[in-house]
Amino acid sequence: MISKSLAEYAVEVKYEDLPKEVVEFTKLCILDWYGSALAGKGEKPIQTILELVQEWGGNEQATLITGGKSSVGNACLVNAAASHIVELDDIHKSSIIHAGTVVIPAAAAVAEAYNLNGKELITAVAVGYEICYRIGEAVSPSHYYYWHNTATCGTFGSAAAAAKLLNLTVEQTMYALGNAGSQAAGLWEFIEDGANTKQLHTAKAAYNGVLAALLAKKDFTSASRILEGRRGFFNAMSEKYDSEKITKNLGKEYKIIENSFKIHASCRHTHPAMDCVQAIMKENCLSYEHIQNISILTYQTVLNITDNPNPETVYASKFSSQFCSALIALKGSASIIDYNEEILQSLEVRELMKKVTVAVDPYYENAYPEKWGAKVVITLNDGSIFCKATDYPKGDPEKPASREELIKKFKTMTLDKIWNTDEHIQAVLRLEEIDTAEWMSLALGEEQCKQTQ
Amino acid sequence: MISKSLAEYAVEVKYEDLPKEVVEFTKLCILDWYGSALAGKGEKPIQTILELVQEWGGNEQATLITGGKSSVGNACLVNAAASHIVELDDIHKSSIIHAGTVVIPAAAAVAEAYNLNGKELITAVAVGYEICYRIGEAVSPSHYYYWHNTATCGTFGSAAAAAKLLNLTVEQTMYALGNAGSQAAGLWEFIEDGANTKQLHTAKAAYNGVLAALLAKKDFTSASRILEGRRGFFNAMSEKYDSEKITKNLGKEYKIIENSFKIHASCRHTHPAMDCVQAIMKENCLSYEHIQNISILTYQTVLNITDNPNPETVYASKFSSQFCSALIALKGSASIIDYNEEILQSLEVRELMKKVTVAVDPYYENAYPEKWGAKVVITLNDGSIFCKATDYPKGDPEKPASREELIKKFKTMTLDKIWNTDEHIQAVLRLEEIDTAEWMSLALGEEQCKQTQ
Repeated sequence: MISKSLAEYAVEVKYEDLPKEVVEFTKLCILDWYGSALAGKGEKPIQTILELVQEWGGNEQATLITGGKSSVGNACLVNAAASHIVELDDIHKSSIIHAGTVVIPAAAAVAEAYNLNGKELITAVAVGYEICYRIGEAVSPSHYYYWHNTATCGTFGSAAAAAKLLNLTVEQTMYALGNAGSQAAGLWEFIEDGANTKQLHTAKAAYNGVLAALLAKKDFTSASRILEGRRGFFNAMSEKYDSEKITKNLGKEYKIIENSFKIHASCRHTHPAMDCVQAIMKENCLSYEHIQNISILTYQTVLNITDNPNPETVYASKFSSQFCSALIALKGSASIIDYNEEILQSLEVRELMKKVTVAVDPYYENAYPEKWGAKVVITLNDGSIFCKATDYPKGDPEKPASREELIKKFKTMTLDKIWNTDEHIQAVLRLEEIDTAEWMSLALGEEQCKQTQ
Repeated sequence: MISKSLAEYAVEVKYEDLPKEVVEFTKLCILDWYGSALAGKGEKPIQTILELVQEWGGNEQATLITGGKSSVGNACLVNAAASHIVELDDIHKSSIIHAGTVVIPAAAAVAEAYNLNGKELITAVAVGYEICYRIGEAVSPSHYYYWHNTATCGTFGSAAAAAKLLNLTVEQTMYALGNAGSQAAGLWEFIEDGANTKQLHTAKAAYNGVLAALLAKKDFTSASRILEGRRGFFNAMSEKYDSEKITKNLGKEYKIIENSFKIHASCRHTHPAMDCVQAIMKENCLSYEHIQNISILTYQTVLNITDNPNPETVYASKFSSQFCSALIALKGSASIIDYNEEILQSLEVRELMKKVTVAVDPYYENAYPEKWGAKVVITLNDGSIFCKATDYPKGDPEKPASREELIKKFKTMTLDKIWNTDEHIQAVLRLEEIDTAEWMSLALGEEQCKQTQ
């Protein structure tokens, strides 16, 4: 009973059992999510979802990151969409999931609506990460070819986090997971158009999981073997899968600490090459004008998702390995403010992009998804050659980002978005001592502060 | 551009171009849907969804079939779930879709919220049916093994109907279809547990399609080739597919008139055999007590979905060929009131069920899904043998249900649910002369009437 084992696990975990390291790390995940949500809340697709949610209306149960309150469902839609759009949210390599953008808004909305405290929130987030990571690992990489794991597997994560917060029984948690799986959706096809669908995916993954859990609380039933069943998630949506990933060491480890944080403001698959380009340029004091060619050798998925020599929007540029490598060669950094319309249209970057080639290297292909690596060879006009390789992008557990780096990243992301930055940071970093509503009231306060200006 | 051709079609269709036959037939579909929704609104899973929707709240945009008003999204959830639970909603054989339960609640909610009239509603429903039927035909039967077509393909239908009502451009309609496809979900695994998931599927298909269309109205973008794209709906979710089904005769015919209506109150796949059992028993004046064996020979899908020798709930009994055939042999009919706990637990039916066998016959398997047929052989204790076969269940276009039969069915379904039955029937049958809100106000009036009793 694979599905049942996850439900039993979710019910058993207690805050008191979480190692201190896990509690501290989970709070950093929440901080990183919060920064992404605040950074993204003003973007057009998020404002569009907000507009619709306001037309629909809802009881004031949970804070919208954009200001005001609405129903738990509406808060999931807005807050999950907001946290995924600036492409700076966390990622877990072996499951290929951005868990934060789905699990945390779901958990925060439920915790606020049901007056739950920070300890309960932290526990639920750790459980949500654990469950969607395990499911993602079980179906990767084959599932990922068609499906956006963050959306599909993420739905189980938001359901599990909500189920934990709602104190569901094992049976009810199975209902939540079952109806999460039967709502799991999200095709990669949108990437061809650089479309807004990506934000809809995270919005709906958070919403769907919470819907499943809230219905489960009322004993709304589901498939009991949603993962392993003959017509369940594994068989229907994955060419190959490994059920053992679900149960191996379950309850004996916390996969959330395998989480990676992003430093560059683009799709994670563009990062290994960008790190190499950045290092070659810096270490050898090179100027982009002398570059004849940038050759990237990496794993197949990089090509599937980011082989785009001509991105037309700033958003699409974050999914173009050609653009991202050219940008960092040109500017030396690729933070949220480095991606803009001006640089995208500049002759310098357009010329440099033409010199970037991306190809598969069997070494990296075989190592993926455990390692997300790349080798970059830069050839200058004078014929000189520079090479750099990495098995991991910066921010991975193997090349970790420090607490201080993440606080700095939060500050950069929220630079012109919030007033009392330190208060927000402190609220998250002492979340185990406060109620979820107290943290969320800061976001509400910011909006009121702004409106009275 | 397969996906685009559907968007162009949806934009081009006008009420004035619909043949009178199509208008009349569409109203019968709406009447049949309405009956199912009224019949199902009091069931526990529907009341559970209603409870959650009430906790969430929403602006009073559209009527809930259960009483009161809420947001368009919430109305989709409640009304679509309500209309699927008594298993009497319409079905299209070659696409294996119950379109009414998804397309009509979506269209009705949008039409009411945006003050649109009956002509606009009828046109949108015809368009919604057309589009989901074509998509269902393109992916059947392979898609249907894992996926509940009503949920997955139905999402495109609700999106298309809403897009038509919202008067979207071709581009916006493509966005609506694109984001419908990227939300399409619904696995058959729940059937093993006879779980409430089935109602969640239709609820969410209606909701997701409308969400996609309302966002599209605000230019929220999506994949432009959601069906045919490399990582789109066809490739991801179907072993085989036939794109030609999408475009062949598009705009030259109206597939809604291929719709089948159900007379027996169970899963459609149980019907061909039930018709044969009913005819053998009646024509030969047989009594169930003399039956030694009922042998059903049919297509594989009947076994996949309804081979259940021991259903434990009334709901599950509607998905058991063994129970359904035993029931109709015993009672001579299988209407909504014939399915109940008492008969399910009765010794007579339990004994008779043990005598029912279901097996595949190559003739019916090869003819499926164009024909949903079965052959039944009943052997009596005295050794005498009776045989009956059909290529189509009653209510199929080849064995059509008349307007009068459908009105009679509506009355049976709503017997103890509404007060002024004739007024409801008349409102739907002259829908082209009134506003959607006028029709829906009857449902509201009924609730008020009941409450003041």
